[in-house]
Amino acid sequence: MRDMRGVVCCFILFVSITTQSSIGKTRHLKWEVEYMHWSPDGVEGTVMAINGRFPGPTIRARAGDTIHLELMNKLHTEGLVIHWHGIRQLGTPWADGTASISQCAINPGETFLYKFQLDKAGTYFYHGHYGMQRLAGLYGSLIVEVAKGENEPFKYDGELNLLLSDWWHKSFHELQVDLFSKPMRWVGEPQSLLINGRGQYNCSLAAHFSNYSTSPCKLRGDEQYAPQVLYVYPNKTYRLRIASTTSLSLLNLAIENHRMLLVEADGNYIEPFSVQNMDISSGESYSVIFTTDQNPKRNYWISISVRGRNPKTPQGLTILNYHLNSASTIPESPPPVAPRWDDESYSKAFYNKIFALKGNPKPPAKHDRRLVLLNTQNFIEGHTKWAINNVSLVLPSTPYLGSIRYGLSKGFDQEPPPDSYGHGYDVMKPASNKNSTYGSGVYMLRFNATVDVILQNANMIKDHVSEIHPWHLHGHDFWVLGYGEGKFTEKDEGRFNLKNPPFRNTGVVFPYGWTTLRFVANNPGVWAFHCHIEPHLHMGMGVVFSEGVRKIKEIPSEALSCGLTQKMFMKNSKY
Amino acid sequence: MRDMRGVVCCFILFVSITTQSSIGKTRHLKWEVEYMHWSPDGVEGTVMAINGRFPGPTIRARAGDTIHLELMNKLHTEGLVIHWHGIRQLGTPWADGTASISQCAINPGETFLYKFQLDKAGTYFYHGHYGMQRLAGLYGSLIVEVAKGENEPFKYDGELNLLLSDWWHKSFHELQVDLFSKPMRWVGEPQSLLINGRGQYNCSLAAHFSNYSTSPCKLRGDEQYAPQVLYVYPNKTYRLRIASTTSLSLLNLAIENHRMLLVEADGNYIEPFSVQNMDISSGESYSVIFTTDQNPKRNYWISISVRGRNPKTPQGLTILNYHLNSASTIPESPPPVAPRWDDESYSKAFYNKIFALKGNPKPPAKHDRRLVLLNTQNFIEGHTKWAINNVSLVLPSTPYLGSIRYGLSKGFDQEPPPDSYGHGYDVMKPASNKNSTYGSGVYMLRFNATVDVILQNANMIKDHVSEIHPWHLHGHDFWVLGYGEGKFTEKDEGRFNLKNPPFRNTGVVFPYGWTTLRFVANNPGVWAFHCHIEPHLHMGMGVVFSEGVRKIKEIPSEALSCGLTQKMFMKNSKY
Repeated sequence: MRDMRGVVCCFILFVSITTQSSIGKTRHLKWEVEYMHWSPDGVEGTVMAINGRFPGPTIRARAGDTIHLELMNKLHTEGLVIHWHGIRQLGTPWADGTASISQCAINPGETFLYKFQLDKAGTYFYHGHYGMQRLAGLYGSLIVEVAKGENEPFKYDGELNLLLSDWWHKSFHELQVDLFSKPMRWVGEPQSLLINGRGQYNCSLAAHFSNYSTSPCKLRGDEQYAPQVLYVYPNKTYRLRIASTTSLSLLNLAIENHRMLLVEADGNYIEPFSVQNMDISSGESYSVIFTTDQNPKRNYWISISVRGRNPKTPQGLTILNYHLNSASTIPESPPPVAPRWDDESYSKAFYNKIFALKGNPKPPAKHDRRLVLLNTQNFIEGHTKWAINNVSLVLPSTPYLGSIRYGLSKGFDQEPPPDSYGHGYDVMKPASNKNSTYGSGVYMLRFNATVDVILQNANMIKDHVSEIHPWHLHGHDFWVLGYGEGKFTEKDEGRFNLKNPPFRNTGVVFPYGWTTLRFVANNPGVWAFHCHIEPHLHMGMGVVFSEGVRKIKEIPSEALSCGLTQKMFMKNSKY
Repeated sequence: MRDMRGVVCCFILFVSITTQSSIGKTRHLKWEVEYMHWSPDGVEGTVMAINGRFPGPTIRARAGDTIHLELMNKLHTEGLVIHWHGIRQLGTPWADGTASISQCAINPGETFLYKFQLDKAGTYFYHGHYGMQRLAGLYGSLIVEVAKGENEPFKYDGELNLLLSDWWHKSFHELQVDLFSKPMRWVGEPQSLLINGRGQYNCSLAAHFSNYSTSPCKLRGDEQYAPQVLYVYPNKTYRLRIASTTSLSLLNLAIENHRMLLVEADGNYIEPFSVQNMDISSGESYSVIFTTDQNPKRNYWISISVRGRNPKTPQGLTILNYHLNSASTIPESPPPVAPRWDDESYSKAFYNKIFALKGNPKPPAKHDRRLVLLNTQNFIEGHTKWAINNVSLVLPSTPYLGSIRYGLSKGFDQEPPPDSYGHGYDVMKPASNKNSTYGSGVYMLRFNATVDVILQNANMIKDHVSEIHPWHLHGHDFWVLGYGEGKFTEKDEGRFNLKNPPFRNTGVVFPYGWTTLRFVANNPGVWAFHCHIEPHLHMGMGVVFSEGVRKIKEIPSEALSCGLTQKMFMKNSKY
């Protein structure tokens, strides 16, 4: 296990498989979404279930395949969309599944067809992208294997998959009301961490090792909250896919006694490196390789722990079960201990170890446009909000894609938000810009422009607090050119990594720091770029990019059946 | 007070003011609906608030006035409609506010214009009619005074208004999931009864008189759950308007020591009669006249109590405050005691005392069509449902009004539901018709036909249980021709009251009994007819009537912006 680099071989460039590929199959799926009682952590609540299951079904397909998914909304009064996180939707920007941006919410009783190609292999997931429906449990795994006849640049005997999430006992409807109240009521820390939708709240798998009076779990194994055990054979090599769709939590993951070799991040190969444990932010995905070279007479913990916030949530746990041991045999030692929650240097060191695998496309050497996006927490009319360069994003009722394609100027604020912030701003002090406003303006990007985004973190409303934010870009991967402390200045440009920066769809900005991302605006469509923390996004922490929309010939009218686009269609109807 | 008939005078026929009336004003209103934290009974929950208030604002207008109400949906993911209960929508069937029937739900961020004329004076209310949004608190009072220069057929010095409702602590979203689960989880009895949106759960205004260890309420008066005191002067005559928008409860209302003279039911004048207390079903409204002729040195209770179901809900209480007494002085005696919950004979006697005031329009002597609607409780695919003649109503995603107007045969089941049920059916035994199905068929009524509806009650799934159901008809008033026990037979026709049957929009059917209603299908539109108990309707206890739809020239496209009507508009668009 010490030198897993030996398994890395045969790298084949997949990142640019296009929709023209004719090698793939079409995968036909029919899904129905409805609320159901579910017990993700032993406490019954309500989840948004797909086809009667939580989490939703795992999609497994090959690069080049086309997904043909009929999504039926069986909710009583609520709309619905599903976003395919990490899929770039080349040529199908209306299938990105972002309400108000790429499409109208699907009304109750209606079916929407998501048809799109899986442009490259990787570990992805899907989730609701309307209101806070992700927090309600609308998510699942999306795994894209390499195209037939192709090989991964590493070898393994078996594959395992973990989808990580966090879970609240208060219903998502109530949390939504809380968040929009005056004064705001914060969602607080989640009650449980879930691994593949399963956690334990009233008991602990590791009660024996606990100093607290937690009772041990008495499980038959068929409970909705029984852990999904990972079955392995000794002395084999496994690929473990990991994706985090948490609504809030930055997690640290470990497999007891097993080092992990990171090989993939967000559907892109990375220069392999080995870790004892790893951070994973909401919106990120990884593949790690590990070998079952430990004592085969016992089982081992797989643990996830909250980092970045003072954790009030117990570790999420499941069991790595070596073949011939009973799956219910609890490991002999306590679960792995994560780095301290406030050890930022650990996270920084971790993220700074991630580089693109050799052969990955390199970023353009120069940018055509640079956006410096300062995030601040502000009050607007008594509500607590997040703002980017003083604008707190409010989504319009007409999807941007339709408004921009058809020139409906009343669809959103025509004044674009600022490219930067006032440079006198002190990022180390509580938000001084009390004048934040709501806005729905769009950054109009020239098609094929190389765009730099500098995420600039700052102090929140409260003194001495700045949080880590994972920013996710739709429709693209971006290069993470670098991280820095304090306020970004032009001098920092010298430190950009243009040689082998990781290519990702989610990038973190550290407390009081900056992060520079670079991407090429070469995917016609309108794309959200936002903090992947669910309440932060809904408090306005996001922006919208538009590029090459005039190149889009026709948008399926089903995607635009609301707001002004609908009115436009109706006005022009012969009825 | 003993002879209040003296105040009844000057009767003027109002029931047929039409939309052609040009006497009225246009009342412009702008409403925004959003969820808010609220404490209707001292326990905080979430309500659907209008303009930041619960209940919604009281609309007060005159007969002949036009309501011009822009309703903005500020919910995050849910659609919305508002039904104007008791307003017949003459000439504006698209403004009836019933999702799937008269219009599409208003999407989040969208505004819908409700424009309709108040065709006659009376005591009405409004409420949500999408999913179970009424249960979520989306309701308010709608009071229509007689047109300027006209007089009521009774006199009074002052007017008071009570809107009655029931309240659950579990959120309506969860109750909705419960109801649709397999097996169904019943909503159970409400935690509180509300008078004008106010009740007391953790304390009692009448704690002094209670045998239980209820604590007395300590109120400043500005709490959201403080009772709305009714202020009166001694020796005056008051009109008390009462409407019930309960989701479940049949109530009994009393004013301590004051007899009430009933003068109006559902916006129609009735032959005045005096009572000590009165039953009021969900969907009904009344006006009563009372005189403040009691000892002016004290205050008096106004009480509402659950009847028809074994009550687990405390009485709802407020205070009738005689001028110069302190409003916070609790009455000297215990609150009124309602008739026993299971005393059906009381209810029957009460309803049998209600007759139309002389001069009211009489029903046509003969019917053109007769529907016999048997209600049964059934299982369908493991779900507990209500069915009418074996069909459990499921609402389609395209509004019937649009499907029928534009001949979209895929909009709903083209096979109409049966006009009657199998006559061998034993209404005294548990439901034998296990083969109920879901259906969305429509009773197509010939325009101007006189239609009899015989509501036939029966035993539920459980042995020895049959419940009272209040049926509400949209778009019309109907004459209640009679009530009977057991199974209706043609012989019972001899007992119909064709002389002075009450003209109403809501009629009850007693346990194991039948009720005959007659109406003229003279209002072009599509109209719901359903049990007004919110969970019963959503378990399928309703039917749909269509009449004269071809006479409707144009339906505002905003009302049809979903489902097949939308597709039709879009297909015919030049885009």
